[in-house]
Amino acid sequence: MTEDSRAAGAPTLEDVAKAAGVSRATVSRVINGVRNVDPVIQAAVRDAVAVTGYTPNRAARSLVTRKADSIALVVSGAGDDPPPVAATAGPSVSAAPGSRGGDGESAGFGGGVGSFMTEVFADPFFGRVVTGVVNFLRPRGIHPVLMFAETSRTRDEVVSYLRQGSADGALVVSTHAEDPLPALITDAGLPAVLYARPARPVRISYVDLAHQDGARLAAEHLLARGCRRIATIAGPFDVPAGQDRLAGFRDTMARHGHPYIPVAEGEFTEESGASAMERLLAEHPDLDGLFAANDLMAVGACQVLRERGLRVPEDVAVIGFDDSRAAASCRPPLTTVRQPVEDMAAEMARLLLDRLSRPDRPVTSVIFEPTLVVRASA
Amino acid sequence: MTEDSRAAGAPTLEDVAKAAGVSRATVSRVINGVRNVDPVIQAAVRDAVAVTGYTPNRAARSLVTRKADSIALVVSGAGDDPPPVAATAGPSVSAAPGSRGGDGESAGFGGGVGSFMTEVFADPFFGRVVTGVVNFLRPRGIHPVLMFAETSRTRDEVVSYLRQGSADGALVVSTHAEDPLPALITDAGLPAVLYARPARPVRISYVDLAHQDGARLAAEHLLARGCRRIATIAGPFDVPAGQDRLAGFRDTMARHGHPYIPVAEGEFTEESGASAMERLLAEHPDLDGLFAANDLMAVGACQVLRERGLRVPEDVAVIGFDDSRAAASCRPPLTTVRQPVEDMAAEMARLLLDRLSRPDRPVTSVIFEPTLVVRASA
Repeated sequence: MTEDSRAAGAPTLEDVAKAAGVSRATVSRVINGVRNVDPVIQAAVRDAVAVTGYTPNRAARSLVTRKADSIALVVSGAGDDPPPVAATAGPSVSAAPGSRGGDGESAGFGGGVGSFMTEVFADPFFGRVVTGVVNFLRPRGIHPVLMFAETSRTRDEVVSYLRQGSADGALVVSTHAEDPLPALITDAGLPAVLYARPARPVRISYVDLAHQDGARLAAEHLLARGCRRIATIAGPFDVPAGQDRLAGFRDTMARHGHPYIPVAEGEFTEESGASAMERLLAEHPDLDGLFAANDLMAVGACQVLRERGLRVPEDVAVIGFDDSRAAASCRPPLTTVRQPVEDMAAEMARLLLDRLSRPDRPVTSVIFEPTLVVRASA
Repeated sequence: MTEDSRAAGAPTLEDVAKAAGVSRATVSRVINGVRNVDPVIQAAVRDAVAVTGYTPNRAARSLVTRKADSIALVVSGAGDDPPPVAATAGPSVSAAPGSRGGDGESAGFGGGVGSFMTEVFADPFFGRVVTGVVNFLRPRGIHPVLMFAETSRTRDEVVSYLRQGSADGALVVSTHAEDPLPALITDAGLPAVLYARPARPVRISYVDLAHQDGARLAAEHLLARGCRRIATIAGPFDVPAGQDRLAGFRDTMARHGHPYIPVAEGEFTEESGASAMERLLAEHPDLDGLFAANDLMAVGACQVLRERGLRVPEDVAVIGFDDSRAAASCRPPLTTVRQPVEDMAAEMARLLLDRLSRPDRPVTSVIFEPTLVVRASA
């Protein structure tokens, strides 16, 4: 079958009406799920659809239902538009630290076209989000439109895409504390759900993790195994997930009589974890326990410990956060706090569909509880 | 602004017509790019669009243009539908080795819902494809719809989605030699472009790499640095990229007087590379050069060499393939054959748009040349 024959021979609404012995309007009503059509006629139309091979055009149905049956999955950053090419020679936008709740490589960008996306995909977190979203939407016949919004222009494109009705709403994974997109979407009155609480208050629904509870689990586990000289590699201080994990860890340690905990700030990347570990060891060569605020930083820390001849967990017990695939492939495999990213992403999609079907519902938040996954590193 | 006010107050075609002082039909003709409209009237309509804030409904435009202005990006496998839940307790589908041209973890699936996607995202290759596709399509106002097709049912959904005109065509990344999707799409007369030559002949356009040339570069580099006891870890034998890289390597070695090269088959994963390295060392403990058919397998091989106390490159020089981010983060950083995945993915998108605008064009192929990237490992 060629494309030409497809265009010429595609069965039409008329063909279905003729085969069913009803009017075009009746066929249209059945296809669009209008109620109060005689069940016998409904069956006849459905048979005629099957016999003719008619597939309703999605664009036509969208005009009737005023819905695109489409959801945008947006990964957004906080960059500005690059200046005109002639104006500068070096990277045109300053790099920005990663900032959402998952494991994170820096999701800023400063290395030219495509590097924002490269950084996004370098992080195991993003694939888990897509997996959760697709697993929820696919059985419902919805397939996400993938968009990246790391500059002013690309943010405007996302808002315009939603305004035009090309997608009914957006699932937004923001990678930066200063990301303006959540507020832009909310100001435009467009339906959206965020992964993780925004760094600045915005009236938008989100799913998130009880990060402080997770950090508490890590602290209690290190204390229970007898660690007494414990340090932490924190996430970026301007990011809610970084702040909350640090606060929960410090709080639990203080409750157990440890008023001071050495802290080195990382950027949720493996490299930043290695460098933070070096700084901690320089000042505290005798430490015997470490909580890294995500798995990638824990992996970097383990590499440094191994290079220094320190055994994990015998000399230093290490706990990560997220339970990404980096945790399982680490040597030794990481004890970590599990963030159920796939479940959280599915819930994000569920919240959005719920909002679309009942636009009068208030914004809401769903907070997931972390669990401790014990492997070899602590 | 609430969603209600948006629905109630959205500017309409009538508003634009009124503001421009022309008929609705004229506004529609200008918006849909119909020729032969007086330039003065065109300008007036455009001004009125700007003043009213009217955004043409994409669904309405699709009905006029018969185009969705949408492209599906499909990652496909070769699985069957799982049997009914009651029929079996264990994993319902056998795992299948990864099989396209890039770096590859196994993209088969056997671990329940979502594991196909998890495997896809575990591979740095996929993020590079998305980056290339989005970089090409986004400036053209097109955002890919992300679909996964690893079972009979999900393959049918992709074909049906394309048939309905929900997307104008598909970019297909197949992960398995036995994947039926390329033939299903071609048989349906739907426009699509593949990443990498299909394992079985199908009349479909594709982009690919000159894998044999890449393997030749690796062989010549190992020989030039004085390696004389050289082995290779090959990709899966049923996959074109695996076959071609092995053939090119063997051929070049034979031309330089090395008629026999020890070969261990891997599955494009880090774990399979480690296990292949162990098999090779068991039989050939004195080897001094290794070509791994992708970077992930080279990383696994380097780990085993390090654990055996063998230095890379002093004792064994190692070359990978792909130049994925695994190559740069390996210790030591990998010398590798670069596959320009982002450029190839962009070309795949370009070929598809070209096909959509000129449906009479014959299927075609574009083959990229690899280059050697010399780092520390060889």
